[in-house]
Amino acid sequence: DAKEEETGDGVRVPVVRLRIGEVAEATRVVVLPVCKAEEREREILEAPWECRTEGEFGVVAAEKGWKRWVVLPSWEPLVGLEKGGVVVAFADARALPWKANRWYKEEAILVVADRGRKEVNVDSGFYLMAVADNGDGRSGALKVERGSELKERGVGESLGTVVLVVRPPKEETDDQLNDEDWE
Amino acid sequence: DAKEEETGDGVRVPVVRLRIGEVAEATRVVVLPVCKAEEREREILEAPWECRTEGEFGVVAAEKGWKRWVVLPSWEPLVGLEKGGVVVAFADARALPWKANRWYKEEAILVVADRGRKEVNVDSGFYLMAVADNGDGRSGALKVERGSELKERGVGESLGTVVLVVRPPKEETDDQLNDEDWE
Repeated sequence: DAKEEETGDGVRVPVVRLRIGEVAEATRVVVLPVCKAEEREREILEAPWECRTEGEFGVVAAEKGWKRWVVLPSWEPLVGLEKGGVVVAFADARALPWKANRWYKEEAILVVADRGRKEVNVDSGFYLMAVADNGDGRSGALKVERGSELKERGVGESLGTVVLVVRPPKEETDDQLNDEDWE
Repeated sequence: DAKEEETGDGVRVPVVRLRIGEVAEATRVVVLPVCKAEEREREILEAPWECRTEGEFGVVAAEKGWKRWVVLPSWEPLVGLEKGGVVVAFADARALPWKANRWYKEEAILVVADRGRKEVNVDSGFYLMAVADNGDGRSGALKVERGSELKERGVGESLGTVVLVVRPPKEETDDQLNDEDWE
C-alpha cells in the first residue's frame, strides 16, 4: 500500500506516493479535472463540477468540457469526488504547510480537494486557499493551509477541503531504499 | 491477454474484451476523447485532435476542452493515438460489418479510430464512415466498413481507420465459460 500518513505536527491528510504502474493495480480508477496552480483560483472555479461515470466502459462524462485530466487509482479518499472534486498540479511542495523532508522543493505534487466542502470547520483539517494580498507579489497564489491557523485568523471559507496529496512515482521501485538513500 | 482476432472473413481489426479491473494491469493507460454514435460525424470532427501526456503524473492535456473521456489499458493498437485518436461509443455492435456471434445486438462497443488515417487504402482494413443518404432515415449514421467494399464503391476517404473494437467486461470473470455458455 502506497499510503503514508505524515507524522509529527498532527498532520491528518494522507500523502500518497504513486507507484509506477499503479494506475493499474486498483480495480477501479478515478478521472479528475486538473487545474494548474499558476492559474490560481480561476481554474478551480471553472473546472467541471460533476464528472459521472457512465456504462460498462466507465466513460467519464463531465458536465462541461475541460482540457486537463488525471487518472488515479480509486483510493479511498477519492470516493465521492464525482461531484466537486478537483486536482491542483503544483511544481513543488512548497504550497504545503509542513516541511517534513527535503523533497518539498524537488518534487511536483498533486493536491486533491473537495470543492463541496469549502467551510473551514476542522482544526486538524487542511484547506486549499488563495493567499490574500500581502504585498509580496504572490497574492492569489494557491496554498494548502491548516484549519487551526485559518480559524485563528477568522477565515471561515476555503476553495475546498484537501483530501489527498499525491507524490510522483520514484524512478527506482526498490522498496529497500528509503527516501534519503534514494535522493 | 484479452485480445482476440475475429477469425473468418479476413477481418484484421483486433477485437478486445475489457476485463474487470484491467484498466489496471497495464503499467500504462491511455485517455481518449469519446463521441456518442448518435451525434454522428459532428463530434468526431469536433473532438480534440491532440491529447498529450504531461509530467510524472501522466496528466492528459488536450488541445481543447471535451466532456467525455475513456481510460483504456495501453494496448498496442492504441500507441500513437495522442494525435487524431478518437473513440465512438455505440449502443450495440450492429455498426460492424461482420456478425460473427449473437453478441452483436446485445453488447455496447467502443470503436477506436485514427482520424490521422482517413484514406481508404487497405482492402482488409476497416474504416469509420458516415452512411450516405439512402432514403431509409439512417443517413449520417456511423458505421464501420471494409476497405474492399469502400474501394469498390469508389470511396477514397473515411472519418478514420479503425484500430480497435472494445467489448465490455463480462460480469462473470470465470475463464472456463465461453461466450455461448455465458450468454
